[in-house]
Amino acid sequence: MFKAIVSSGTLRAALDSVGVLVEECKIRLDEDELTIRAVDPANVGMVDLSLSPAAFESYETDGGVIGVDLSRLEEMVKMASADQLVHLELDEETRKLHISMEGLEYTLALIDPDSIRQEPDLPDLDLAAEIVLEGSHIDRAVKAADMVSEHIVLGVDEDDEHFYVEAQGDTDDVHFVLDREDLIDLTAGDAHSLFSLDYLKEMNKAIPKDAEVTVELGEDFPVKMHFDIAEGQGNVTYMLAPRIQSD
Amino acid sequence: MFKAIVSSGTLRAALDSVGVLVEECKIRLDEDELTIRAVDPANVGMVDLSLSPAAFESYETDGGVIGVDLSRLEEMVKMASADQLVHLELDEETRKLHISMEGLEYTLALIDPDSIRQEPDLPDLDLAAEIVLEGSHIDRAVKAADMVSEHIVLGVDEDDEHFYVEAQGDTDDVHFVLDREDLIDLTAGDAHSLFSLDYLKEMNKAIPKDAEVTVELGEDFPVKMHFDIAEGQGNVTYMLAPRIQSD
Amino acid sequence: MFKAIVSSGTLRAALDSVGVLVEECKIRLDEDELTIRAVDPANVGMVDLSLSPAAFESYETDGGVIGVDLSRLEEMVKMASADQLVHLELDEETRKLHISMEGLEYTLALIDPDSIRQEPDLPDLDLAAEIVLEGSHIDRAVKAADMVSEHIVLGVDEDDEHFYVEAQGDTDDVHFVLDREDLIDLTAGDAHSLFSLDYLKEMNKAIPKDAEVTVELGEDFPVKMHFDIAEGQGNVTYMLAPRIQSD
Repeated sequence: MFKAIVSSGTLRAALDSVGVLVEECKIRLDEDELTIRAVDPANVGMVDLSLSPAAFESYETDGGVIGVDLSRLEEMVKMASADQLVHLELDEETRKLHISMEGLEYTLALIDPDSIRQEPDLPDLDLAAEIVLEGSHIDRAVKAADMVSEHIVLGVDEDDEHFYVEAQGDTDDVHFVLDREDLIDLTAGDAHSLFSLDYLKEMNKAIPKDAEVTVELGEDFPVKMHFDIAEGQGNVTYMLAPRIQSD
Repeated sequence: MFKAIVSSGTLRAALDSVGVLVEECKIRLDEDELTIRAVDPANVGMVDLSLSPAAFESYETDGGVIGVDLSRLEEMVKMASADQLVHLELDEETRKLHISMEGLEYTLALIDPDSIRQEPDLPDLDLAAEIVLEGSHIDRAVKAADMVSEHIVLGVDEDDEHFYVEAQGDTDDVHFVLDREDLIDLTAGDAHSLFSLDYLKEMNKAIPKDAEVTVELGEDFPVKMHFDIAEGQGNVTYMLAPRIQSD
Repeated sequence: MFKAIVSSGTLRAALDSVGVLVEECKIRLDEDELTIRAVDPANVGMVDLSLSPAAFESYETDGGVIGVDLSRLEEMVKMASADQLVHLELDEETRKLHISMEGLEYTLALIDPDSIRQEPDLPDLDLAAEIVLEGSHIDRAVKAADMVSEHIVLGVDEDDEHFYVEAQGDTDDVHFVLDREDLIDLTAGDAHSLFSLDYLKEMNKAIPKDAEVTVELGEDFPVKMHFDIAEGQGNVTYMLAPRIQSD
């Protein structure tokens, strides 16, 4: 059993954060939270999304897992403006999800969860550096790097206490430095890892420009980025595997 | 002889309503009205447009028929902003139309009317149900159906007194219901017909979102939709043939 | 040695004016001005750009010539909003240009100036007519002509004292007339020349709609167009060779 009412804006933010990595996903419906975990087909980028029942106008379930086509569901939810309410109800027998808003009712065929890629475990990592910054700064870093390269270095200079972004193209380079004044918070520690820009660009699309994003970084380790959605009643964690340094 | 002055906005609304169905058309110039009737090459969608002389700043003609390339003419008229005046004058000898606005003068070669598809007769139909609603509701219905199917059902439930829209895709469905409160007016009567969404999408483009649209519907019959343009000094009627039900 | 600080808006206006004609160019750095002259590969359109040191917040050089990939440089400069300052500094040893703005630092590899097409000499022409008009009028003329033809005639009627634009397509024509009232200034003189619309469309992209543009015209002669940028501390001259009249 699953029956919920939620604002279109909250539901879209949640679905978009997963939709940038995968086409289909499992949605885990538990009494105390709704969660989605997914990893892209190349096993490089992962997402872990959680929405508390408090993110909903109403939320009732006795547990279960459903499989959905994310772009289809997102498209339907977009028929409502951000502050309109969307009603969701699972029909257990037909395995269909009813999505309704203001006179409009969609019936979305669900996907057998067993046919969907297994959910990843996001490893607990003890990373040396933690940077807290605005989403708009991540956007700027990604755009700047994208002009010269397909890879991006994220790092922290422990002595100078700044966060840096580097990209080296065949001919041109870019460096982007944010010091304590530009950042919301910084736990300095030596960190320097190389990532595929393609993944970071996709993740960046789902990070609100005004979000407070916590970035955890190490030496040639995965990066973790987390931020709140749904006015703090939900959160998203991205993890991106590093590329092996070529220099 | 034909010589007229009209606001760019009025002329564009008139031409756009025909341009969504055909590339070329005959414009019939009569002393008491300007009319365009056209049917698409597949004989599925028809349009009947009429503009009263009162829709013009000035309108003089002694009758006649001209053939025009609609997209060319629309493009030229778009060089003026909506409230600017466009001057039209027919040169009978060269069979060209002079279109002028603020220092700019186009000469548009006309098309031999005999080379243009014959004008259709829009049949008088006695349809059981009549729905009057805002253009924005038609837009919503078309967008909602377009996500799941290439066909759309329009219908009226006589007992429940509501207008409904249905679309059934291979896996997903959508239902959209507007009751008396959502509608401007409703003459209930059993009605249920299936249409090609492609045509309705094109017609929808030319229906102003704030227009009051009258929809006449029957059981497996064509649908008629009419609405005013030019502040009531003109009107457009669309007729769309039904598809045979597959269920 | 070259070291300068300039607003992103000023730098973009300068680079864009050249970028519509060529991909790469030489930038000539002199103590009393920065200049770019370039001609397109077909030798039809030329540009001559000059920026006074007063257009910069600071400007220091002991002379020199650098070769740049314009689209790359434009893209980097666009990372700053129009009123933000961009710092430029030439590294003579590595032949790289450092471009920095708000924590972001690009290193752009320069191109060997000898590998770039030679700079043209813009001939001094004694043209009969001079028209001064708003950039928005050039935009209107170009758009109007583009609907019917790939060529455009610019001319002045000495007797009627007006500037005219004509385009003749296979079937349709357009005429656009601006008289003394529409123009900022007019030095009448018989002038009538045919141009390729493609080039004029590109130049038009770089002409600000609110710029005061001086157009010099003759009989089957090149047209010269010049306008100020950087609040009068810089200027751009375009020259476009005429097409031979086909009539």
